[in-house]
Amino acid sequence: MKKRLIFGILGRFMIIEAVLMLLPAVVSLIYKEYNSMNSFFVSALISALFGTVLHIQKPEKGDFYAKEGLMTIGLLWVMWSLIGALPFYISREIPKYIDCFFETASGFTTTGATILTDIEALSKGMLFWRAFTHWVGGMGVLVFVMAIIPVAGNNSIHLMRAEVPGPAVSKLVPKGMRNAKILYGIYFGLCVIEFIMLVLGGMPVYDSIIHTFSTAGTGGFSCKNASIAAYNSAYLQWVIIAFMFLFSLNFNLYYYMIIRKFSAIAKDSEWKIFTAVVIAATIGITVSIYNLYSTAEEAIRTAAFQVVSVISTTGFITANYDIWNGFSKTIIIILMFIGACAGSTGGGLKISRIEIMAKTASKTLRSLVRPNSVSNIKIDGKTIDDETVRTTNGYFILYMALFAISVILVSVNSLTLEESISSVATCINNVGPGLGVVGPIGNFSSLSFFSKLVLSIDMLLGRLEIFPLLLILLPSVWRRKFI
Amino acid sequence: MKKRLIFGILGRFMIIEAVLMLLPAVVSLIYKEYNSMNSFFVSALISALFGTVLHIQKPEKGDFYAKEGLMTIGLLWVMWSLIGALPFYISREIPKYIDCFFETASGFTTTGATILTDIEALSKGMLFWRAFTHWVGGMGVLVFVMAIIPVAGNNSIHLMRAEVPGPAVSKLVPKGMRNAKILYGIYFGLCVIEFIMLVLGGMPVYDSIIHTFSTAGTGGFSCKNASIAAYNSAYLQWVIIAFMFLFSLNFNLYYYMIIRKFSAIAKDSEWKIFTAVVIAATIGITVSIYNLYSTAEEAIRTAAFQVVSVISTTGFITANYDIWNGFSKTIIIILMFIGACAGSTGGGLKISRIEIMAKTASKTLRSLVRPNSVSNIKIDGKTIDDETVRTTNGYFILYMALFAISVILVSVNSLTLEESISSVATCINNVGPGLGVVGPIGNFSSLSFFSKLVLSIDMLLGRLEIFPLLLILLPSVWRRKFI
Repeated sequence: MKKRLIFGILGRFMIIEAVLMLLPAVVSLIYKEYNSMNSFFVSALISALFGTVLHIQKPEKGDFYAKEGLMTIGLLWVMWSLIGALPFYISREIPKYIDCFFETASGFTTTGATILTDIEALSKGMLFWRAFTHWVGGMGVLVFVMAIIPVAGNNSIHLMRAEVPGPAVSKLVPKGMRNAKILYGIYFGLCVIEFIMLVLGGMPVYDSIIHTFSTAGTGGFSCKNASIAAYNSAYLQWVIIAFMFLFSLNFNLYYYMIIRKFSAIAKDSEWKIFTAVVIAATIGITVSIYNLYSTAEEAIRTAAFQVVSVISTTGFITANYDIWNGFSKTIIIILMFIGACAGSTGGGLKISRIEIMAKTASKTLRSLVRPNSVSNIKIDGKTIDDETVRTTNGYFILYMALFAISVILVSVNSLTLEESISSVATCINNVGPGLGVVGPIGNFSSLSFFSKLVLSIDMLLGRLEIFPLLLILLPSVWRRKFI
Repeated sequence: MKKRLIFGILGRFMIIEAVLMLLPAVVSLIYKEYNSMNSFFVSALISALFGTVLHIQKPEKGDFYAKEGLMTIGLLWVMWSLIGALPFYISREIPKYIDCFFETASGFTTTGATILTDIEALSKGMLFWRAFTHWVGGMGVLVFVMAIIPVAGNNSIHLMRAEVPGPAVSKLVPKGMRNAKILYGIYFGLCVIEFIMLVLGGMPVYDSIIHTFSTAGTGGFSCKNASIAAYNSAYLQWVIIAFMFLFSLNFNLYYYMIIRKFSAIAKDSEWKIFTAVVIAATIGITVSIYNLYSTAEEAIRTAAFQVVSVISTTGFITANYDIWNGFSKTIIIILMFIGACAGSTGGGLKISRIEIMAKTASKTLRSLVRPNSVSNIKIDGKTIDDETVRTTNGYFILYMALFAISVILVSVNSLTLEESISSVATCINNVGPGLGVVGPIGNFSSLSFFSKLVLSIDMLLGRLEIFPLLLILLPSVWRRKFI
């Protein structure tokens, strides 16, 4: 294994993180929060120094293999979270380091689960950094691909594979810088439009930036304790519903739109299934919570907001769904697992993966009825190769196993079963809030050190689609001389 | 599809069910419960008449295919449950038919979930019938194979495949009557030993029969409201722990013991994993409930009883685990899903299936690290063919999908999330009690008609390993002219 090469890439990214920290430092300066500003400078200095040290050795020559690419991605997210936690800790705005780490991992993984009991008590600079981690995490794919190409040559495809969430059926592999720039452009463009629409709706500029960052990464951190409910504006809620939805779609669709390949959009089944699930869940919850709200619009909007917020794995809140009935809460938990489309900034199992699994199940049933029939799994008319099907099934098994193990580990914390299940479900699927003490009006502060660590790992596992993180957690990978 | 042949087999089994009903009729006679006795006679008459009508047409000639075998099994369990519910209904001991159906499906599927609020209010004859359905359900494999051989010739292997729970790695396919008789012998033998040991421990003869039936089928119906806790005897509890454990093991092991092939037992990994899980869970729960009990023995025994009761999917109760902490309840729920060994009378996912899935997951991880490596999944030194691996993965996907859909459907009943999850988990895994209102001291009586129907179907789906029942629920199977 090319450890020096891996460390070199990580070093490069530590320096990038140092640069990124200068932005919240500027925000702190604007708001005259000198303590926060200094924390960002000190953290940036540490990150840059650390990066330089890692970067100092000459990397090994030769190809960069899949395993190394996956492990680099895994280590990268862990280190970014470890270092990104420093400003919170140095400024003493979050006293315990485990809480700082949890919050930052939650940021970079675009989860949005928080340990803060009073969000508004934090400085503007810190809240900016917090939402900014979502934005950076959300565009992770593009950043990584672009920054790593000069180092690793054409093999950056492996990093891409680790990064693009879900088994993208028609993956938009960036051919060098050109396609990456297009994806950047789409991400920026959508953000600018959302920002303008929020400002036009009367949301303050600072708040609009925060919520645009959080929507774009499908993260969910807000600068308000009451999340989006704080603005009490139907217009703002509908705007955010729309953009949470848009950021959950496969970015390929926007690319197709730009190159006017509308037939590809018409043929794509993923966004249609996603839309159908959103509509069905919204109708179901609307009916079930109807009598809690005064107007039909309010009931529909509240249901739609929570449905899109959860399935997009954003986690913004306009209603305390913890007090809804069992049916609505069940739907919420199941939406967490379904998640967004592949190739979006969202988490969860992903629609395309569920599509492949559904076809696997139906194929199994068919082969029992007609044992001698040979049939392939097709999606959108294209045959899915056996390797992808196997990997998807293996992924699902690992996913459920990690879910079960995490629930056991977290339940030691003397949470209720509902709280254990929902806290792991919300973290591994990168949603944000769960039920009960970790519900929409609660937070993760009361959990033990151990539970926070487990849930932080779950967030990273979920965001990185298990494999990269699992590889670095396996001692045998480090010990043995794999290729 | 050979409908007449299928109906013929079903008719034969209706007549067998009529004969089986004569046994509880005798019990009713002994206890002078003439109302119950008459209900059994009337039900037996209906069953026999119905069977004769189904049986009357001359069956089609030709081979009996997998699909037809699976469907026959599916229909058989549904019809046995529908007809077996009649004595409860006709005697008016259970007023609503849906409750009678639920109770009988729970019996034949060896689940043990009950809608009875006062079990002891039922007549001795009815309680006998209720436990007897467990015993018959548990030996289903053997009964079916033996009874169907004369009708379907050698193709009965397909029925066997549908019936033997789990993807038995080293399946004991009965070669005609000889092996079936050996399995019968093992089942009877274990029952006789348990019965004697219970009687020696001071349990009344009638109660000993009931509990032997329920243990053998890993069902869980008791003749006492307090289940096994009613006897307040450490000896009886240990005996039942031992037999619940024994009936959860693959019956191949006993066969190997009889033919003195001890090397095969030593090589078999399933019972070792099963034992390890039982010990680990018992230790975990003992530690966590230690201070609730006065002596160490009581804490260990109570933990061991619930662990073995749940993982064997029996569902007998000696403690109200609903008041235990979140950790213990989480373990209980996870044990429900793990289930017993393949080739036993227990339910759940089964250890051998989990073993195959764990190896699938590890293979997926390995193939990411070394993309060009080709490796097969091996269990106990034997290569598992791709077809079995695919079917196992497809099964797991279907299982989780049906679980999620059922939880949504049941949650409409305004249960809590914990109750919805646990009621479906306990029914689809054929355990018996869940948590909350359906917990160890609760029952399913308060649920809606719709929820009872959903849970009855879940019990049948779980017991029949999904495929046979799913096939008869798919209209396309009936409509189209499959082979």
